[in-house]
Amino acid sequence: LMETIHYTSRWGTGARWGERPTDTGMSRLTLSDADKEARDWFVDTTRSLGCHITVDAIGNIFAVRPGKKEGPATFVGSHLDTQPTGGRYDGVLGVQAGIEMLRVLHENEIQTEYAVGVVNWTNEEGARFPVSMMGSGVWSGFFPLEDAYNLRSVIGNQATLREELERIGYLGQTPASYESMPMAAHFELHIEQGPALEAERRKIGVVQGVQAYNWFTVEIQGKDSHTGTTPLANRSDALLLASKFILHSHRIATKHSALVTTGILTALPGSTNTIPGLVRFTLDVRSPKNETVEAVAADLKRDFATLASGQDVGDLHAGGTAGRNEFKVSWTTDSATSATVFHEDCIRCVREATSDVFGDRTKELVRDISSGAGHDSVYASRRCPTTMIFIPCRDGVSHNPAEYSTPEDCALGTQVVLNSVLRYDKL
Amino acid sequence: LMETIHYTSRWGTGARWGERPTDTGMSRLTLSDADKEARDWFVDTTRSLGCHITVDAIGNIFAVRPGKKEGPATFVGSHLDTQPTGGRYDGVLGVQAGIEMLRVLHENEIQTEYAVGVVNWTNEEGARFPVSMMGSGVWSGFFPLEDAYNLRSVIGNQATLREELERIGYLGQTPASYESMPMAAHFELHIEQGPALEAERRKIGVVQGVQAYNWFTVEIQGKDSHTGTTPLANRSDALLLASKFILHSHRIATKHSALVTTGILTALPGSTNTIPGLVRFTLDVRSPKNETVEAVAADLKRDFATLASGQDVGDLHAGGTAGRNEFKVSWTTDSATSATVFHEDCIRCVREATSDVFGDRTKELVRDISSGAGHDSVYASRRCPTTMIFIPCRDGVSHNPAEYSTPEDCALGTQVVLNSVLRYDKL
Ligand SMILES: NC(=O)NCCC(=O)O
Ligand SMILES: NC(=O)NCCC(=O)O
Repeated sequence: LMETIHYTSRWGTGARWGERPTDTGMSRLTLSDADKEARDWFVDTTRSLGCHITVDAIGNIFAVRPGKKEGPATFVGSHLDTQPTGGRYDGVLGVQAGIEMLRVLHENEIQTEYAVGVVNWTNEEGARFPVSMMGSGVWSGFFPLEDAYNLRSVIGNQATLREELERIGYLGQTPASYESMPMAAHFELHIEQGPALEAERRKIGVVQGVQAYNWFTVEIQGKDSHTGTTPLANRSDALLLASKFILHSHRIATKHSALVTTGILTALPGSTNTIPGLVRFTLDVRSPKNETVEAVAADLKRDFATLASGQDVGDLHAGGTAGRNEFKVSWTTDSATSATVFHEDCIRCVREATSDVFGDRTKELVRDISSGAGHDSVYASRRCPTTMIFIPCRDGVSHNPAEYSTPEDCALGTQVVLNSVLRYDKL
Repeated sequence: LMETIHYTSRWGTGARWGERPTDTGMSRLTLSDADKEARDWFVDTTRSLGCHITVDAIGNIFAVRPGKKEGPATFVGSHLDTQPTGGRYDGVLGVQAGIEMLRVLHENEIQTEYAVGVVNWTNEEGARFPVSMMGSGVWSGFFPLEDAYNLRSVIGNQATLREELERIGYLGQTPASYESMPMAAHFELHIEQGPALEAERRKIGVVQGVQAYNWFTVEIQGKDSHTGTTPLANRSDALLLASKFILHSHRIATKHSALVTTGILTALPGSTNTIPGLVRFTLDVRSPKNETVEAVAADLKRDFATLASGQDVGDLHAGGTAGRNEFKVSWTTDSATSATVFHEDCIRCVREATSDVFGDRTKELVRDISSGAGHDSVYASRRCPTTMIFIPCRDGVSHNPAEYSTPEDCALGTQVVLNSVLRYDKL
């Protein structure tokens, strides 16, 4: 397991964070050349372990190992794409655990009741093409195929997703749909990406659900003008207004105990001596409750309009001279994901699998948990029984090259996912 | 004059802002293909008007028309490069007025006492390579040639300035120095880029001097992490801190009656669901007084350090939860230009030239003025008697495609510059 994780990190190696040869992160943007190589390796490896391969119209790759009876396979799934400054575990571990499961079944010549499979979903990260869990979103019918095809890269060139699928040879023939590729169930092993398991010295989190999150793009149109000749009071400085918006988004997040983040900001025309007339930035809004995500977005829309008109909001008047304040502010909703509750049958299989592995120590080493990050299991759960298994990761750090889980924890998680699938297959 | 201004705008045409064929801005970044074409046109045209051409090691182009006696020429100079979203007048008018002067002398077979010339300075704008008035800065000995050569493009590719000079064929043999290319005087016609002349219905501003300005780059190193799993209190969000800095820079500017602007901001890694761990942004700080520019910079350095450590500054605590606040903040000074006072002899020539043109109405139509923007005349003035002539521009707008001056005002300014040069030549 660890050998394949580290071997395949040659495709898209990221920044170094430590001394050992494997102490580097990953930068394998979806549908890049590096992603193509990782995909090719996935296809070759799962084929050599006795699987049939299906690539669908959004580039999801399904590797299916036949069982005794006809019928939909029980899947282990996750993703091989990473953040631009990502680590070796987010997504990768889940796919590699599935391949490890195939290897164990293959080497031990185990026949399952029904087929089992491993799926590599396209563009889970939403980094290069800014919609997360996109491949599973299309498969589930919740995100339209055409919208996905038309997404443009926000990193490097501005190619469309469809062009990139074609370019790397992963625009498949099979319709991207749960109807063409039905699943009996979907299990996903993942690093927690938060600090809870490590802090409590637990080994496994049995994931109950995933919080809601919406992504928005806000665009501010002000007016380009000269930095040396335009008095503060005559300006419509789009970047100054964006700064107020970003600060204010944090206080609204605090008020609602929600999370709000701006990850991408572009200021144009981008010249030291021109006041930016156009700023575009993203907002990522999250909460366990759908209503809270909606309330945060509503507060922000209202207050951004007030700030854009040059009025204070609460005690936010930190901008010195307000300026001419002739702005147009527009909002786009890029994606919306409601809160997810996982399936009791799958959760029961995972609980039993942890007992298989930990015996007497199960209560001490295993806890229920919910997920702050989105995962392909969110959309899988819309179409088949689904759950997830979390293992600890150091300091809760993720979306960072230094993301790390111990080999022992990776192995324990993989053992739990194998036992969960075998139990579900029996069920 | 207007024909050549509009004819040469074919090289680097910018955004449309009105209905008429000439109602578009300019986007002629320094040392781009478009800049090469404008330079080639400048060389051909001035040669055809009887000039000798010298290109120096930083790409400044000097066109000199011999006079009766040997000795340094009196120059008219400005620049043909523009902002990415610039207009048709900033810089261009000054060079075209010089060419118009050459044409008048040539067609009327006028012999001047000494040589007269026109200079096109390299990279006045500092947009693509972020140091303004660079060619004149090197010529004057105030900006080191090697530092200029090593500047990297901040727009498009990251080529060095030296590479781009070579690529377009304008890396000249003559040393870039006032010693190799001495000037008797330097006159520059420019649009005001501010609202004063238009508001008072004046035709000419006799420029007394230029305010001081320094450019800085601030870099904030925080920590990349996951937007969905990192509590607000555990974040080191470099973009949130940058937002506080930008807001605060406006209140410090207000306190000192100075100008502060952020024109360029880059947030990395640039992914919707990764908290930016690295932000770089520019600060352009201006005031008529050198001490004020220094005081603003000192206040900002002090307060940025306080904000970075998670403490409030005054009533700026608008960030909601402060976060983990593990930041490194670094400052670079990219350029520093002290306040400039122009030469009394040149100013007298301009005053007399305005009397030539306006007669009785001089007092009503002409006023003294000082410049908020930097100009090549700032560095020229370090090495020879220098001044500038301003004409009104609509709404004071500049560094914007809709920058506009009337043909009448362009012609009046050009007449004043011609008379000023002839008077200085006699002097
Ligand atoms: N697990 C993970 O990092 N997925 C990316 C989608 C998200 O932003 O939560
Ligand atoms: N005149 C002009 O816009 N020059 C650019 C240098 C500056 O930023 O003032």
